[in-house]
Amino acid sequence: MAVLTAQEDDFPRWYQDVLTKAKLAENGPSRGTIVIRPNGYALWERMHAEVDGRIKAAGAHNAYFPLLIPMSFFEREAQHVEGFSPELAVVTHGGGKELAEPLAIRPTSETVIGEYMGKWIDSYRDLPLLLNQWANVVRWEMRPRIFLRTTEFLWQEGHTAHATEREARQYARRILHEVYEDFMRNILAMPVIVGRKTTRERFAGAANTMTCEGIMRDAKALQMGTSHELGQRFSQAFDITYSTADGTHDHCWTTSWGASTRMLGGLIMCHGDDFGLVLPPALAPVQAVVVVVKESDGAVTRAASTLADELQACGIRTKLDDNGSQGFGWRATEWDLQGVPIRVELGPRDVADNVALLFRRDTREKSTVALSSVVDEARKLAFRIQDDMLAAATARRDAVIVDCATLDGTREIAQAGVARVPWESVGDAGEAELAAGGLTVRCLQRGDGSLPEPDDDTGVLAYVARAY
Amino acid sequence: MAVLTAQEDDFPRWYQDVLTKAKLAENGPSRGTIVIRPNGYALWERMHAEVDGRIKAAGAHNAYFPLLIPMSFFEREAQHVEGFSPELAVVTHGGGKELAEPLAIRPTSETVIGEYMGKWIDSYRDLPLLLNQWANVVRWEMRPRIFLRTTEFLWQEGHTAHATEREARQYARRILHEVYEDFMRNILAMPVIVGRKTTRERFAGAANTMTCEGIMRDAKALQMGTSHELGQRFSQAFDITYSTADGTHDHCWTTSWGASTRMLGGLIMCHGDDFGLVLPPALAPVQAVVVVVKESDGAVTRAASTLADELQACGIRTKLDDNGSQGFGWRATEWDLQGVPIRVELGPRDVADNVALLFRRDTREKSTVALSSVVDEARKLAFRIQDDMLAAATARRDAVIVDCATLDGTREIAQAGVARVPWESVGDAGEAELAAGGLTVRCLQRGDGSLPEPDDDTGVLAYVARAY
Repeated sequence: MAVLTAQEDDFPRWYQDVLTKAKLAENGPSRGTIVIRPNGYALWERMHAEVDGRIKAAGAHNAYFPLLIPMSFFEREAQHVEGFSPELAVVTHGGGKELAEPLAIRPTSETVIGEYMGKWIDSYRDLPLLLNQWANVVRWEMRPRIFLRTTEFLWQEGHTAHATEREARQYARRILHEVYEDFMRNILAMPVIVGRKTTRERFAGAANTMTCEGIMRDAKALQMGTSHELGQRFSQAFDITYSTADGTHDHCWTTSWGASTRMLGGLIMCHGDDFGLVLPPALAPVQAVVVVVKESDGAVTRAASTLADELQACGIRTKLDDNGSQGFGWRATEWDLQGVPIRVELGPRDVADNVALLFRRDTREKSTVALSSVVDEARKLAFRIQDDMLAAATARRDAVIVDCATLDGTREIAQAGVARVPWESVGDAGEAELAAGGLTVRCLQRGDGSLPEPDDDTGVLAYVARAY
Repeated sequence: MAVLTAQEDDFPRWYQDVLTKAKLAENGPSRGTIVIRPNGYALWERMHAEVDGRIKAAGAHNAYFPLLIPMSFFEREAQHVEGFSPELAVVTHGGGKELAEPLAIRPTSETVIGEYMGKWIDSYRDLPLLLNQWANVVRWEMRPRIFLRTTEFLWQEGHTAHATEREARQYARRILHEVYEDFMRNILAMPVIVGRKTTRERFAGAANTMTCEGIMRDAKALQMGTSHELGQRFSQAFDITYSTADGTHDHCWTTSWGASTRMLGGLIMCHGDDFGLVLPPALAPVQAVVVVVKESDGAVTRAASTLADELQACGIRTKLDDNGSQGFGWRATEWDLQGVPIRVELGPRDVADNVALLFRRDTREKSTVALSSVVDEARKLAFRIQDDMLAAATARRDAVIVDCATLDGTREIAQAGVARVPWESVGDAGEAELAAGGLTVRCLQRGDGSLPEPDDDTGVLAYVARAY
């Protein structure tokens, strides 16, 4: 009877079932690649639009840089090449000939964008230079998993150059909070933990990495978006300099930041239940579906169609399901799977009584409302679902976070939850020990929940968990 | 004094000057790749939005397929592999190891999408299957030219499967007219010539290729978007079959269609003049700029800022230029270069007189209008410019099209214009001869301007020209 494996029985299999049954994505023809089907891509388009709007509001401009990067570019920054070399896909032949210099498919674009920043920046008047690109990247993945770890993935990568360390730091934080955290909390309804990565977990080549960590329903963490201060490492490697107002020359301070199709995995695993996807209304491509439960003489379809038009007209993304060739049960299961937040169900009896049934996907509660107030109620319900989903996800997250004070305690708690422990009880050595057991320090946070300064470890707390 | 090489003196150099001076794009680090700078990318984002809306209105859904395609996929369709083999970029190494099977970077995605269509289509109920993807593709390019021929370019590629040849044909034509032609005429203000390609000029693997051909200011043609009937070739190669209502099995009829960043080159070369870009208002990322010509006591900036807000509020994409650190002449040159359709200029005298100067970029005409009617006039002017630009481009196009009746006449006319000649006067042999001299049959059209049937050559006219 059940369409999906129950989460409790086998969470990874439930995840795979949702991907397949909801037709979100499947494996591509070569290892680690995926096909994002229309249902999955519609979610990504909504993410793209919301994140893109926030990036533009933060003053950055979209541009596009080449997919293929000369191998020599990577070698200019020591830590960067060390981090990415094992993951590169390399083009050795083009146009039927072997290439003089092999080209890497971009795993990220700091190097090629650094090269152009160096050309474009001349004086302090050119700063800050705030760029972003939406692109595909390739990182050879040994243990691929759809959306979470794939050889090719889609993302945005921002790259900025500033006159001072302070400005670069402020901007990297602004992106973290105003773009990523805001989008994840207010659109994805995910109460991400915002913190700083440990030195061990930094991006290859970064001076400081900040992160938004989501907690999934199986208590595992998922890194959802990161923002990096790159210091002057890339500006030295790529000669990104500027002349100051008083005529001296200095290297810029650069940042980079990214969020990817991995967020699709987070969305599924943070909110999904045994019936399928559960979408927050702010993200949902379809916010309400009006379903003709059963038709008799055409009156139900007419009423449903009018209702759907009214909902759409008042700004609710609406779909009409008047598919008479499939039974209602089959269709309800399908809309459950797709996670559509609000279902308006209409049958002959409802139309006769001038009512409709309002079903909310998150709590599965039903209520009967007058036909004339469906639009009003649906609009209010959309806001309520959005708030309730964030509250529910926050409650689930908080229920698995356990405070402790020792490395042993941390190890035990993090087997099935998230340990919050003073970083001084872990330290670099403890972190390495935890890592050997498959546990990672997801991020560091100050006691009041704020972001610690890059080099200030005093009194900070570590979140330790299993992670995707 | 002149910022750009004059078109009359050296058209290719003028084009290169516009790209550079307007900061639209430049060459990437490896041959044939390009960097699309924010000014260029903003144009592409507007194209993307307009084309995407039309594709969705035609019922297709966006999806995403892998960048890397096993080489063996190409070998399944004979004409396709023959056409694309010389242009492939090949990944031979991934994750530090040599791959068992090399992977091609997609030059187009018929093969990989065909593979999945085969999996997803079961019965006639699954048809039509209408997919589209926005993606980058790589075709090794021997004579690269920014936007026109680049090794990597951005595009959309639609792929559909249908139950009958008739339905596939109708859909391929619908895309040609309702998506491409409509977008190009009504948004880009380009009077494209819509026709069918000759057998020689068909897409590799297509049974029929239809095209929109733009005519540039130098009378050269540019293929701007194509729509292909693929017959049953790919459905046979990739086993895309369906069961009919009466239980038999049949191969689908497929189509594919694409338009790319090449349209940016068309936009520049169809409308641009010696002052730079000239953008049609419907496309322009910034439709109006309000320029503070000179400031005295802050009153001009206040008035300009109010005006900019009012223009924006009434739906005109507006920017305020209150940059006092640069002289007006320098800034006016810059807005000319960027092709912003409407310039509202305000100086202290204007504010005192309660007027503003309205400058239209296409004709360079100026008019003085009362401050209180600027918004109204600007709105009307935007429509007028859009109409006038299409009319002007149509007049330029028609001025270079010359009717003739012989192959010799065609050859002579097409040196500096577009020859329209009965196809029976050219034929396959004549076409090959013309090609040897760098002239191509851009498309075939019926005498009344309509699209000829795929196999009906009787009485059709050929457009012959030099082309990008």
